[in-house]
Amino acid sequence: MAKIKKTPRPKAETPKGFRDYFGADVAERKAMLDAIARVYHAHGFDPLESAAVETVEALGKFLPDVDRPNEGVFAWQEDDGTDKPGDWLALRYDLTAPLARVFAQHRNDLPTPYRRYAMGPVWRNEKPGPGRFRQFYQCDADTVGTASVAADAEMCMMLADALEAVGIERGDYVIRVNNRKVLEGVLDFIQLSSDDPRRPDVMRTIDKFDKVGEGGVLELLTTGRKDASGAFIDGVGLDVQQAQSVVQYLSQRSVVYDQGKTAGRLASMRQAVGSSEIGLEGIEELENLAVFCATQGYLEDRIQLDTSVVRGLGYYTGPVFEAELTFEIKDEKGRPRQFGSVAGGGRYDDLVKRFTGQAVPATGISIGVDRLLAALRMKGQAKADTTGPVVVTVMDRDRMADYQKMAADLRAADIRAEVYLGNPKNFGNQLKYADKRGSPVAIIQGSDEATRGVVQVKDLVLGAKIAETATHEEWKDQPAQFECDRADMVARVRAILDRK
Amino acid sequence: MAKIKKTPRPKAETPKGFRDYFGADVAERKAMLDAIARVYHAHGFDPLESAAVETVEALGKFLPDVDRPNEGVFAWQEDDGTDKPGDWLALRYDLTAPLARVFAQHRNDLPTPYRRYAMGPVWRNEKPGPGRFRQFYQCDADTVGTASVAADAEMCMMLADALEAVGIERGDYVIRVNNRKVLEGVLDFIQLSSDDPRRPDVMRTIDKFDKVGEGGVLELLTTGRKDASGAFIDGVGLDVQQAQSVVQYLSQRSVVYDQGKTAGRLASMRQAVGSSEIGLEGIEELENLAVFCATQGYLEDRIQLDTSVVRGLGYYTGPVFEAELTFEIKDEKGRPRQFGSVAGGGRYDDLVKRFTGQAVPATGISIGVDRLLAALRMKGQAKADTTGPVVVTVMDRDRMADYQKMAADLRAADIRAEVYLGNPKNFGNQLKYADKRGSPVAIIQGSDEATRGVVQVKDLVLGAKIAETATHEEWKDQPAQFECDRADMVARVRAILDRK
Repeated sequence: MAKIKKTPRPKAETPKGFRDYFGADVAERKAMLDAIARVYHAHGFDPLESAAVETVEALGKFLPDVDRPNEGVFAWQEDDGTDKPGDWLALRYDLTAPLARVFAQHRNDLPTPYRRYAMGPVWRNEKPGPGRFRQFYQCDADTVGTASVAADAEMCMMLADALEAVGIERGDYVIRVNNRKVLEGVLDFIQLSSDDPRRPDVMRTIDKFDKVGEGGVLELLTTGRKDASGAFIDGVGLDVQQAQSVVQYLSQRSVVYDQGKTAGRLASMRQAVGSSEIGLEGIEELENLAVFCATQGYLEDRIQLDTSVVRGLGYYTGPVFEAELTFEIKDEKGRPRQFGSVAGGGRYDDLVKRFTGQAVPATGISIGVDRLLAALRMKGQAKADTTGPVVVTVMDRDRMADYQKMAADLRAADIRAEVYLGNPKNFGNQLKYADKRGSPVAIIQGSDEATRGVVQVKDLVLGAKIAETATHEEWKDQPAQFECDRADMVARVRAILDRK
Repeated sequence: MAKIKKTPRPKAETPKGFRDYFGADVAERKAMLDAIARVYHAHGFDPLESAAVETVEALGKFLPDVDRPNEGVFAWQEDDGTDKPGDWLALRYDLTAPLARVFAQHRNDLPTPYRRYAMGPVWRNEKPGPGRFRQFYQCDADTVGTASVAADAEMCMMLADALEAVGIERGDYVIRVNNRKVLEGVLDFIQLSSDDPRRPDVMRTIDKFDKVGEGGVLELLTTGRKDASGAFIDGVGLDVQQAQSVVQYLSQRSVVYDQGKTAGRLASMRQAVGSSEIGLEGIEELENLAVFCATQGYLEDRIQLDTSVVRGLGYYTGPVFEAELTFEIKDEKGRPRQFGSVAGGGRYDDLVKRFTGQAVPATGISIGVDRLLAALRMKGQAKADTTGPVVVTVMDRDRMADYQKMAADLRAADIRAEVYLGNPKNFGNQLKYADKRGSPVAIIQGSDEATRGVVQVKDLVLGAKIAETATHEEWKDQPAQFECDRADMVARVRAILDRK
């Protein structure tokens, strides 16, 4: 007899690299995004929500982090049932590429400059790893259609405001600013021609300054270096003098917006770019940006020049920003280190031009939502009401209507409440449920209480405390469970909630 | 000479069937979803956000609207660079299938019953049409892990609360309730066996009752019918007596939750199912649901039994709900009709079982976000602050810091404000920009005003009114532009905003 094949049951699993967000995860993220949106809105930015799906053609090849393996987008080809080959569609990998498409498409209807903010998930088809997900949130603000450095300065100041609005204290963050044009000027100065293939390698090496320090960068720019694992990393192949010029430039990092010092600092930056036209242009932009921030009171405790900021993305053309959280955390080996980057951005003047042929200057910032939220949690600053509902337990199945009325009365007084809807037979399960929900209070009314017009109010938070401390003595004036008139129930529950 | 091929510029277009949402579109939807979330939260529901991407295996084949062409999901196959064929992944087409997967995956950690709400985009790979998009929002609440009709009743009452919370007035909506088991009972009664292929056809025909009426359903259930366009629709093939039984059942729609009448209504429903066990079970559930709602004060002006509600989805197993807006709108030909369905739901007891093999009863509702928002707009109930920012115009390029300080002062007083960042040369363009932004006020300060320590405050709303009415007379006490001390600027702007 042939075996009968059963259809196997589907696996209940997220795809690799994806995850679910529950309860407080969702509520805290929403509270944070709402706070950021209020800052963006106050600055005149309007929300924009484009679709998750774009044509591959419109997205273009501007993915960051070109060093990573399996880097890419989730893409598929349209099939409309005809013979005609369909468009290739893909999930957006950031919120900037869609903005460029949106502005090019709607530019005649949109105000110019167009200031918009956007928040939502983006997708990267990367190899998933611990803590690295293929869907994550970004939260961006951009100004499209202005070349003014005032717009770049505004981005830096608004980013500082946003970080403080969500609960990062002044002193716990710094916005570091550089300018791609200055970096280009340094490479001009050491006579790397603009089409020299080593230019991007030099940029990537500069990006590693924080990790490997001056000596490491010198090695990497010249003959190469052995990394911590013992593997040899090839050098970029500059000569020693070239490499030293670059390192000298990098060592001027943290030129702060102290107006007394800025002139001297900028002068030594000028040495690093020599007569490079683009380099000098970049320095002038940084100077203007510095003055804008300083005159609005955003000083070096919040916004600093930093010569080592590069930003991975290829499309930046002018000022680049990076927001770092400076408070210490422990790494996986227990060593102290700074929390690190939570946001970045910069000026990108050519993204819209791809579509229209006309130059449309633009600048923007992008907040890494999950990282910033992780930082807020570490600082105890993640804000959301995660109190569970008051649970009205079910003693008598045939009096559900009474229990529902209790929950409705509580809700009418703005108290989150629900009736237990599982199988009521095992009363212990009802209290376990309330515990799992983080309920502050359980309401109990058996037929005896119903007859007498009373309810039992069980203070679950106090009850847990009493259970912990093992001695009832210190709580004896605050019983964890008491009886009250049904008519007083809402007021008595309110009193418990107000005490917390 | 060979022609030099240029890479063609990418088209700046959304993929077919997708769209962008700007400004007020986004803000109004967010305000509506926040209001609904508050209702769900008050009832003890927790937020859940699952990823947009699921394995095709986990999603299963539960797509609604099986009649539509090109119906399906956006799917692609994973490619991890190895020879091993990758998983098929797809964008979620609703929020219910992912919930079933989530509950099956995390059931040991989740409270039972698990009450969650979810809001977010879903995707359907359908042929796009006017007003039909391939990405749209849903907003769901579900209770997983309880078979209690009290949970179904709660869904209906909570849906009513949610509609009123967003601004649909009582009397402008009705939640219609039926039970799949009663429908099954009716088909038992007319002796269609449970595996008769005509059963789903009968269900679909019943779903058309609103469109074609009793006579139409009779024709469609038997020999067929010519539709409005003259095309002939094949009949299901029931005999006339069978079809009449079905129509008799349908004609009992709108059995209201008037306790005085319910008994009689339910008795005549019993006639339609005869001795069908499942039919009688369904009627008992409806009776209980009716009592739960009535005792909580949700009467026939809000929640009604309606024998013609079927709901397209194949997975419903018990009570089914549909929220209809009953106010009149004009259709595309100017004829009055009811606004129609904005939400629906029901009990689905087998979705989790697909994964686990164990029955996990569940019930839920889903709000069609875009349709409900469209209804709110028609009723003037879409709520969001869509006032544009105060625009500080730029008269002197070298005094940007002064203008930025003005905007910062306004923001510090909770007034949305920005500096014009476009090319300031043409002052008319700055006012046109403010107009396009919906700005209530523009601030102007030339070098003369700066010397005197004053600003010009231009009331753009009043200015537009004056321009409309052509005569200045009636506005003469309220000049559209006035001068004031720089120190008084914030207070004077506040006064204008408060007047609106």
